[in-house]
Amino acid sequence: MDDARPIISEGALAIDQGRIVAVGFARDILGKFTSNVEYSGIDNVVLPGLVNGHTHAAMTLLRGYSDDVPLMDWLNEHINPIEAAVVNEEFVRVGTQLACWEMIGGGTTTFVDMYFFHDVAATVANELGIRALISASVVDQPRNDAVDIDDQWTQANQFIQKWSAKGQHSTVKPILGGHAIYTLKQAHLSHLRDLAIEYELPVHIHLAESQFETNYSQTTYGNTPINFLESIDFFEPHVIAAHVIWSTAQEIDILAQRKVGVVHNPTSNTKIASGIAPIAKYLDAGVTVGLGTDGAATNNDLDMWEEMRLSAYLQKVTMKDPTVLPAKVVLEMATSRGAEAIGLGNEIGKLREGMRADVIQVGLKNAHQLPMYDVESHLVYATHASDVKRAFVEGECLYNEGDYLTFDPESVRRQVAQVSDTIRNYQKNLR
Amino acid sequence: MDDARPIISEGALAIDQGRIVAVGFARDILGKFTSNVEYSGIDNVVLPGLVNGHTHAAMTLLRGYSDDVPLMDWLNEHINPIEAAVVNEEFVRVGTQLACWEMIGGGTTTFVDMYFFHDVAATVANELGIRALISASVVDQPRNDAVDIDDQWTQANQFIQKWSAKGQHSTVKPILGGHAIYTLKQAHLSHLRDLAIEYELPVHIHLAESQFETNYSQTTYGNTPINFLESIDFFEPHVIAAHVIWSTAQEIDILAQRKVGVVHNPTSNTKIASGIAPIAKYLDAGVTVGLGTDGAATNNDLDMWEEMRLSAYLQKVTMKDPTVLPAKVVLEMATSRGAEAIGLGNEIGKLREGMRADVIQVGLKNAHQLPMYDVESHLVYATHASDVKRAFVEGECLYNEGDYLTFDPESVRRQVAQVSDTIRNYQKNLR
Repeated sequence: MDDARPIISEGALAIDQGRIVAVGFARDILGKFTSNVEYSGIDNVVLPGLVNGHTHAAMTLLRGYSDDVPLMDWLNEHINPIEAAVVNEEFVRVGTQLACWEMIGGGTTTFVDMYFFHDVAATVANELGIRALISASVVDQPRNDAVDIDDQWTQANQFIQKWSAKGQHSTVKPILGGHAIYTLKQAHLSHLRDLAIEYELPVHIHLAESQFETNYSQTTYGNTPINFLESIDFFEPHVIAAHVIWSTAQEIDILAQRKVGVVHNPTSNTKIASGIAPIAKYLDAGVTVGLGTDGAATNNDLDMWEEMRLSAYLQKVTMKDPTVLPAKVVLEMATSRGAEAIGLGNEIGKLREGMRADVIQVGLKNAHQLPMYDVESHLVYATHASDVKRAFVEGECLYNEGDYLTFDPESVRRQVAQVSDTIRNYQKNLR
Repeated sequence: MDDARPIISEGALAIDQGRIVAVGFARDILGKFTSNVEYSGIDNVVLPGLVNGHTHAAMTLLRGYSDDVPLMDWLNEHINPIEAAVVNEEFVRVGTQLACWEMIGGGTTTFVDMYFFHDVAATVANELGIRALISASVVDQPRNDAVDIDDQWTQANQFIQKWSAKGQHSTVKPILGGHAIYTLKQAHLSHLRDLAIEYELPVHIHLAESQFETNYSQTTYGNTPINFLESIDFFEPHVIAAHVIWSTAQEIDILAQRKVGVVHNPTSNTKIASGIAPIAKYLDAGVTVGLGTDGAATNNDLDMWEEMRLSAYLQKVTMKDPTVLPAKVVLEMATSRGAEAIGLGNEIGKLREGMRADVIQVGLKNAHQLPMYDVESHLVYATHASDVKRAFVEGECLYNEGDYLTFDPESVRRQVAQVSDTIRNYQKNLR
């Protein structure tokens, strides 16, 4: 993904202390460095780990809990009641473990999370060694048992101070999060912006996801969502905006000028019929666009390979032009552009000297990948999560040909079974 | 997929002489039958093998050969020249082997093919034991080296007589095929219809795939494609119509009344920007709809799980309604409805006594499938080709947890490497 040297045949990569120290031809690298650990592969490709720019990791425990129903029924009759009943620290701990298991094994090395009990999610991600931006998120219209907004601010401040202090000793960074403009009062959106400026951290928010949101914004503020946020200077800090489906041409210019990081979630957006974000127009206008899976309760998996493909298909067919979103650009959205969208463009997303060593190794010799004429085409259109062979974060190998090195999948499986039994029992009572 | 008994927990299936002889609870089945071979599985689901209703198997050798280019450039500047240069019996033999390898391992047990050298494709499918309807297809505007249309008719008749005579001794059945209304003269379309009636076989055709085709039909026949075919009584035999993207409400009624089997190819249709077929409207009108992958040159894989998901996403978002194409209906499109669409509705697509034993066993305990609340939701929205554990056609096990029992994948891999080297050499000369 480095424009200077896009594809290197017979390449090698040297990693030291979590950073890439050399990348180039194997013949140049191998003689120069003495290595403690060496990994190799024939007919493999090494590329930056995938960046999942928007998810709700713990909701993986609600995968397939409720499908094929209208959005408001899904939220009000299915998800909100079960979350009110079962979401606690244990739920978030087990759900985040399950999500990280799926993501690491499928080549995702960074995710941006928004959910309840963010300190628990951060602790899990840190233990498992995956890179994560965990949102200290606030919301005014929460579940019944959610905490008072003042307590939410206190928790957010404590969380940010705690996880910022870890510095280089953690792959987890705290960021700010606000659910959406229709679930947060204007004063709280402004406070969120102020905190983000004070801490010099990004803010993560759902934005322009539904026509409901546009109507709400028009009624409440006499303005569309992006224009409203611009009017309160919300884009002054770096904003990670998930979805951004409903926008005008004039608002697209704002997204570009304010360098908003748009995270496109094509599976979730189509599966719950929210709409198709005009990503080709965003790219033309110079907007930074990454990709995300959203939560597994609306996806129903955390597979970035499928998000890549689907983003290409949707733009090609809606623009009536098969040349838009070519494979290379889509791959950038899952790596370098995705890193930029979440504010980590100088740290990850490219294999370049000095960048953090978040790297994946992918097999290219399975039946569905034969023959091979163009590696970028194959990565986007024919490669699956199951083709990932190894995943490294900060130089540490987390996944090695079927083995997970920072946790025990069988233990997670058992805990998932326990929590999902509880969920099934509540489900029976709710119905 | 049998409405009478949709999901059986702790089930079993007995197979004798290629047919399902019993299906039900394990406690009822296991005592009744003595078995030579027994397969079992915990946390697995057994379902009918998937039906890929439209593909060009040998084109798998052109997977990723040319992507992200306009359709007419793709055809005229990339695909047609390379096909004219390299397609021969060897190409079709190796390409069909590769396609069958990918399909069998991913749970597809039946495919409907249209390509050159159909006798070679039929021979390969028969040797590998996969069920296939191979089109003896004719075309007026072929590649430079294609045979005269009279010779094509002769070959079609010979092919049909040869493969019909094999009867129960083959999983391969011949059908008729015509490329499209814009590549076949009206007289030849009529002759195709007559032959299909004479042989009592289905006709396979690309129909209403592009706006180019609609324009061609209007200019040439003063009618849209479906109305034109109706006007020449083309739908008198069973027609397997691939794509069917561009149709009017009045034409949808024709599709339903004439019991046309529509095969939806959502990946190909979106990737080359042909359009989105109005499948939800077809289903409402009572049209029989199956799913297909199209060729790997426009897909770029032969993965029916992805076709299932994509068909659901596209209808939900275009109809602005997440309730359309629920998981159960999508699963039917890949199995029972797909079987009906290709004229095999009484033979395959359901696990029912007397039906042919085309059966797959799928694992449901991988990270991306945990936890599990609804098996149909998981099969459609969270299951991948790599989750398939076993595949059986006519009771014969073709794939058993990583092992292919009717061919040697390494040998296919080597042959693919040879043919693709030839293709790469031509590619260099063409550019």
